[in-house]
Amino acid sequence: MRDFLPAEKARRESILQAIRRSYRAHGFEEIETPVAEDAARLHAGLGGDNEKLAFAIMRRGLGADDLAAAAESGSALDLADLGLRFDLTVPLARFTASHWHELPKPFRAIQIAPVWRAERPQKGRYRQFVQCDIDIIGEAGPLAEVELLTASAATIRSLGIERFTIRVNDRRLLIAVLEHLGFPAAEHELVLIVVDKLDKVGPDGVVAELRERSSSPEAVEALRAHLLRPQTREFTPFGAAQIRKGLPAGLEHPGIAELAMIGETVTAALRASGGEPDAEPVVFDPWLVRGMGYYTGPIFELAHPELGHSFGGGGRYDGMIGRFLGTEVPAAGISLGFERLVDLVGAGADRMNAVALVYDQHASPAEIVAARDRFVAEGANVRLVRRPKQLGKVLDQLAAEGVAAFVLVTPGVAAAALEPKPLAAR
Amino acid sequence: MRDFLPAEKARRESILQAIRRSYRAHGFEEIETPVAEDAARLHAGLGGDNEKLAFAIMRRGLGADDLAAAAESGSALDLADLGLRFDLTVPLARFTASHWHELPKPFRAIQIAPVWRAERPQKGRYRQFVQCDIDIIGEAGPLAEVELLTASAATIRSLGIERFTIRVNDRRLLIAVLEHLGFPAAEHELVLIVVDKLDKVGPDGVVAELRERSSSPEAVEALRAHLLRPQTREFTPFGAAQIRKGLPAGLEHPGIAELAMIGETVTAALRASGGEPDAEPVVFDPWLVRGMGYYTGPIFELAHPELGHSFGGGGRYDGMIGRFLGTEVPAAGISLGFERLVDLVGAGADRMNAVALVYDQHASPAEIVAARDRFVAEGANVRLVRRPKQLGKVLDQLAAEGVAAFVLVTPGVAAAALEPKPLAAR
Repeated sequence: MRDFLPAEKARRESILQAIRRSYRAHGFEEIETPVAEDAARLHAGLGGDNEKLAFAIMRRGLGADDLAAAAESGSALDLADLGLRFDLTVPLARFTASHWHELPKPFRAIQIAPVWRAERPQKGRYRQFVQCDIDIIGEAGPLAEVELLTASAATIRSLGIERFTIRVNDRRLLIAVLEHLGFPAAEHELVLIVVDKLDKVGPDGVVAELRERSSSPEAVEALRAHLLRPQTREFTPFGAAQIRKGLPAGLEHPGIAELAMIGETVTAALRASGGEPDAEPVVFDPWLVRGMGYYTGPIFELAHPELGHSFGGGGRYDGMIGRFLGTEVPAAGISLGFERLVDLVGAGADRMNAVALVYDQHASPAEIVAARDRFVAEGANVRLVRRPKQLGKVLDQLAAEGVAAFVLVTPGVAAAALEPKPLAAR
Repeated sequence: MRDFLPAEKARRESILQAIRRSYRAHGFEEIETPVAEDAARLHAGLGGDNEKLAFAIMRRGLGADDLAAAAESGSALDLADLGLRFDLTVPLARFTASHWHELPKPFRAIQIAPVWRAERPQKGRYRQFVQCDIDIIGEAGPLAEVELLTASAATIRSLGIERFTIRVNDRRLLIAVLEHLGFPAAEHELVLIVVDKLDKVGPDGVVAELRERSSSPEAVEALRAHLLRPQTREFTPFGAAQIRKGLPAGLEHPGIAELAMIGETVTAALRASGGEPDAEPVVFDPWLVRGMGYYTGPIFELAHPELGHSFGGGGRYDGMIGRFLGTEVPAAGISLGFERLVDLVGAGADRMNAVALVYDQHASPAEIVAARDRFVAEGANVRLVRRPKQLGKVLDQLAAEGVAAFVLVTPGVAAAALEPKPLAAR
């Protein structure tokens, strides 16, 4: 977990505000849930591997009996009743079920908040990090996917990030492909887990693992032939014909037309709102899996040429909210990896309209505060600096930080008489 | 712990942004620390009674040996290595020590963040709540106190809260009073804890408890006479003469002049920046104690006529940072109770410039998204509403929520041709 110093914190807050502003403009509404959820809910099977990474909060008032019982059972989790959330999806499902009758239908939710995972410390992985999720709950049709992708693309663009690609696929198409290739239904989940490693281990690695683990050698060989056939994982321009090129010949599924419509609509909307007319912002990736088991329809991932990993992703997950609510509710969402967005956004100047008040040690508190209040009233962000021995060095540093002007606060000079001098012009 | 629905979340975010903006304008810089700190640091004696309320996070990878050892020792805390912070002061001290050489001197810090306390659920007490702290580290003189109080008052006023009072005292004066009355030094801490209950139990309650617990009956009787003498706890107009009126006759202390200067300067600054010319925003309260043991100089508390409790407070705590840093560093801070501020701020309209797009079920996703993007580009906050059977009822509700206009999105009508209609005028 990390500390953030002022310059980095200001940059993060300014990016968070831009994301919040853009998503709100696009019709989403922000909610907030507590950082801790009931341990039983965090370990209900909706979090996949992340469940193992949940930080557990100890029950209050544990007594000797509880400790003895845990020593007996060998299970430390018996001592925990709460845990820190590892994602924003489990809390959203719980929130939606708790407040169903108070929410508009469909409900367009924003969540911008930290999550925690007990990862081993390594570069680019943090134990506390911020996720920015939007979800649409109660909208079964493809309008939800179109809204999620166009609102997210507009939000990412509003941060000055232009060169990104939306990779899409559909869980139903993946299953149809596995059926078409001859994998038995009981093995679909296993095969998807192995295929998800395609980027890392390549087609040979996928085939080698499946030859060991699948009960159907014919299906594995059919998959091998299919994997080796397409020369690309990026099928564009987006449309039903291109999707079919990425699928085994002859495979038909209603999801093809729906995915084509989503991709074409998003592409057109992004071109209409300022993208390059020839750009292909959406690509069909027939091997995009997304790790979580709860997806039931279209899935998507955000890629940027400067990043080795995706910087966001999501999809349709129609079954999950119902598990908490007890009635079927369609849902789809997308999550932006805030920490990766911060890496992509250039270090912007966030010290606009700043005035440094360099105060003499003999100036009185009343004089210093009067000077400050004058410039605050004029709309400036004031920086208060105790006058150092080497004034020039400090002024150069302030100028480098983007502070526009400075004022020397000296004893006996009224606040109204102070004249700021530009810093850049020195 | 609470969920926040969209209207309440929007209100909270708008207040948080206003606080952040105001404190930044006044020369403070925001930092952020992780929610969890080392358990040993949280239980180092700086948190007073709050240490007992810290949520403990279990060590990862606890084995049978650890559980057996905890059962043996009977101490559940042996199983925790981290805990959720119960205030922002302990994290600030740790942060300052970690990053001392990277920080400007003096350093003016903003922290706006949640803290957690395992309180018993009761009205107005939450287990997760937000604190807004500012601190000035490395400034020994009264400029720090003047800055903290004037910046906080301006921030509170920026939220539309005008009728508040700053109650001030000085720990050194309290100690001088106890010495003057004849309490032995070893009993000062005890007497302050009892005097802190004056609001709840009255002078008779304080005297009764001290008659039982103090070894010096003469001092208790002297305190009784002194307590019964002043008819008020609010000494104004602020100045050395008024402070002396609240102290035992003949008591002299250099803190009197310093506190008078702080109060007079703050009063003048608040009057100059738009307060009523006759208002007395600062009062001397000779029995203001503030609970925490670490205060070493001026202390303050924010009071509002509509609240039974203070909604903020702070003071000088010169010893604490040094304990982490290993060298003496003067420091002072003030903390706003965000949850109480939210209660004081009226329910403001936060749906400015909102346009509701009421979309027909036969409008295509492309048409709906094109309409949305048109109004977003025009600077509106769009609300997307699926057209209901009873349109009038929903439009009335949107108008009541402050939505300014609506548009019916119907199939075959281009986005550019849509004409928003004012909602209030219906």
